Amino acid sequence: MKKGNQKIKYADLRHIMSPKSVAIIGASENPDKIGHVILQNYVDSGFAGKIYPININTTGKILSFKAYKSVLELKGKVDLAVIAIPAQVVPQALDECGRAGVKGAVVVSGGFAEVGEVKLEEDLIRVANKYSMPVIGPNCLGVMDLRSRNDTLFLPTFKIDRPKIGGVSFASQSGAVGSTVLDLISNEGFGLARFISYGNASVVDEVDVLEYLAHDKETKVIVFYIEGVKRGKEFAETAKKTTKLKPVVIIKGGVTSAGSQAAHSHTAALAGSAEAYEAIFRQFGFAIATDIKDLLNFAKIFDTQPPATGNRIAIITNGGGTGVLATDAVCQNGLVVAKLSKESEQSLRKSMPPIVNIRMPLDMAGDADDKRFSTVLEVIENDPNIDAIIAVALFQTPGADSRVAATLIHYATHMSKPMVVISMGGSYTKMHKEMMESAGVPVYDSPGDAARSLAALINYSRYKKGI
Amino acid sequence: MKKGNQKIKYADLRHIMSPKSVAIIGASENPDKIGHVILQNYVDSGFAGKIYPININTTGKILSFKAYKSVLELKGKVDLAVIAIPAQVVPQALDECGRAGVKGAVVVSGGFAEVGEVKLEEDLIRVANKYSMPVIGPNCLGVMDLRSRNDTLFLPTFKIDRPKIGGVSFASQSGAVGSTVLDLISNEGFGLARFISYGNASVVDEVDVLEYLAHDKETKVIVFYIEGVKRGKEFAETAKKTTKLKPVVIIKGGVTSAGSQAAHSHTAALAGSAEAYEAIFRQFGFAIATDIKDLLNFAKIFDTQPPATGNRIAIITNGGGTGVLATDAVCQNGLVVAKLSKESEQSLRKSMPPIVNIRMPLDMAGDADDKRFSTVLEVIENDPNIDAIIAVALFQTPGADSRVAATLIHYATHMSKPMVVISMGGSYTKMHKEMMESAGVPVYDSPGDAARSLAALINYSRYKKGI
Repeated sequence: MKKGNQKIKYADLRHIMSPKSVAIIGASENPDKIGHVILQNYVDSGFAGKIYPININTTGKILSFKAYKSVLELKGKVDLAVIAIPAQVVPQALDECGRAGVKGAVVVSGGFAEVGEVKLEEDLIRVANKYSMPVIGPNCLGVMDLRSRNDTLFLPTFKIDRPKIGGVSFASQSGAVGSTVLDLISNEGFGLARFISYGNASVVDEVDVLEYLAHDKETKVIVFYIEGVKRGKEFAETAKKTTKLKPVVIIKGGVTSAGSQAAHSHTAALAGSAEAYEAIFRQFGFAIATDIKDLLNFAKIFDTQPPATGNRIAIITNGGGTGVLATDAVCQNGLVVAKLSKESEQSLRKSMPPIVNIRMPLDMAGDADDKRFSTVLEVIENDPNIDAIIAVALFQTPGADSRVAATLIHYATHMSKPMVVISMGGSYTKMHKEMMESAGVPVYDSPGDAARSLAALINYSRYKKGI
Repeated sequence: MKKGNQKIKYADLRHIMSPKSVAIIGASENPDKIGHVILQNYVDSGFAGKIYPININTTGKILSFKAYKSVLELKGKVDLAVIAIPAQVVPQALDECGRAGVKGAVVVSGGFAEVGEVKLEEDLIRVANKYSMPVIGPNCLGVMDLRSRNDTLFLPTFKIDRPKIGGVSFASQSGAVGSTVLDLISNEGFGLARFISYGNASVVDEVDVLEYLAHDKETKVIVFYIEGVKRGKEFAETAKKTTKLKPVVIIKGGVTSAGSQAAHSHTAALAGSAEAYEAIFRQFGFAIATDIKDLLNFAKIFDTQPPATGNRIAIITNGGGTGVLATDAVCQNGLVVAKLSKESEQSLRKSMPPIVNIRMPLDMAGDADDKRFSTVLEVIENDPNIDAIIAVALFQTPGADSRVAATLIHYATHMSKPMVVISMGGSYTKMHKEMMESAGVPVYDSPGDAARSLAALINYSRYKKGI
């Protein structure tokens, strides 16, 4: 689907993300209606701006708010219109928004190109272009901005946790992937800056979303689920500009032939081949995720850790076998196991008990306590042969307790080298994992996740330095 | 390390796993001693058999049990000796065990070949062979058998959760990997049959452990962490016999050159190349895990699901984008997306709402409730074109609730086709995940995990049928 006028840019999403006033078109007293859920969500989330319910059949109030028959009654008063009415009447409602000076719209309604109603979607685009009005959707969940408490999601709040405020923004073509990842982010240590589920991308598309997030001051890391890209050339230009500013973690749905066909019927997006996308994404400096879990795993290292100066990894562990697996994972992800400098070797030979073999991976033994961890980390921090650290901290061992977690927090948040922690286990481990993550330490459930995430950070560091 | 007499077999681990009486050599009143922790664990876990603390310096009682200076005072009375004393005196203590008619021993003490004390380990082997006594270790955590409440672990119980009783047995050369996986299993839906951490494998080795578990009635699925194999030919023969009886999930530590070196210094095991092991493991019909998480993911599908008759996968979903990702994951793991039969197509066209596109992946839409799920699963169950099912159930959606979980439980536990569920999210999702897993449904956190696990099951089904 092409835009009528390619020159129109829709990357100014400020009024959609942080509106001072919102009109909910399709607001209803009937709890089965999406417009009801959206209105209720605005009330529940404590949105501080003006709320205007709009329903053509209204006779007065909806949920104790004065209701209007049309947005035309609110000329000049509305920043954002959230539209949740049958597809057939969306273009007309959008036209009224344009005439009323609404600054942006989110169309959550489905029933457009994704079910073959191409003409209806073209009408929608024509109206948006006529008023140069940024429109997100149709067929989407819309946006969430925690700072302004702007939340167009129409999913039951008890079914989906709401994240903390933070620096990771997440954009998703798919609403299902969007809500799932949002729910998962809520259970991670890091927080959310912006969420954008943009559905059919008929007006505001991947390029606009990327450009907006690139320049958004609240966004430190961009996480992206896409199924297709419509404006290839503009996407490439924007992508390259964006990765100069901040990391972009991306997952592409429809990388296999069958998956691509599924994506096509899903959001009417034209999907490309896996190889083509991957080759291009690498040129852009994107961190390529291949599973949903990678999105979260990569986001947390980019959100918390400094860039790396190289790929020589120190592996320290309080469990031998896990050190072996971490070594395998490091090598399998294009990284190398660091060699300790002569000075580090001598220093550790003095300070470690005789059972500890002074070489990488450094197996500090199961009785390693916080002092042994900090002695080793102090040496590693100052070793010029080491670029980044993987610390395996198994809390099942006799030596590990909350003091070890506190030591890891100290180093992972103060060093100029990136550091990740691997901790796997049940309740006692989970407690320490949460403790470390809440303090900004990226903790991983497996050697593979840790090494893959560290490789993503290192590859991006190199890309940015032009290596 | 070779055995003095290759004919001696040590696969009879019955007395080690389910002893009627246990002697703890090195038992102590001093809480800092490992022998104290082991004795206390026997008390705490409610071991029903006789407990005999042994300490050469004892003057009477240890932890209110009558204590002995030597196991020789208990001739004929001891099934299992757990040995936790300095390495130098282990061979002598083991000799006393032999003379006292002890039926098996676990040597948890380290300080043998793994730190270069090869001679000491040879002495240990010589004694074991002299009495044909099966010995697990040295340098290991030992064994856990939940039915007899036999637990030699010397890790603090508050740091490591104890699993439920079930059909998955786990053997690990590495104690660190062993305790971590044990802790992780405790938080899974499935339960444990036997745990064996066998360390240096100087007497009872990989071959013996595999042979024991192959013939153990309580063991339905074998999960194995190895770093090396000493008796290659015997291992091959035993492996092939074992996979005829039950599935074996294996992870090999030290598959890269650096990892292999690390493994060598860790348990004095000779590690081989990644390719060599993988090729051989495939011939054995092993399910090869490449990350610790795979061990759990593969174990739960083998523990709960029937064999597959083919690789044609039905994907049903209540979220479009996740269906796309599941389709990609299926294709990337050597499986194919099934085509519905004509009859199924017609039936679904009648019963599904018009918004549902009748094709795979079947996107049942976000308002899919338990009825829509069961209508679809009923059709799929009877479709001869379908061999296995991936059901994506996103509990963030308006239609999904505990009735959907109950429907998935019904089909995943009653069908003759294997079925897995993908559910990802926060608290509401986790609750349903636990509900389904406790009922025997394998639930996965990502499309990649689900497809990889299903592929492992299908590959094993084919191997067993000789395809």
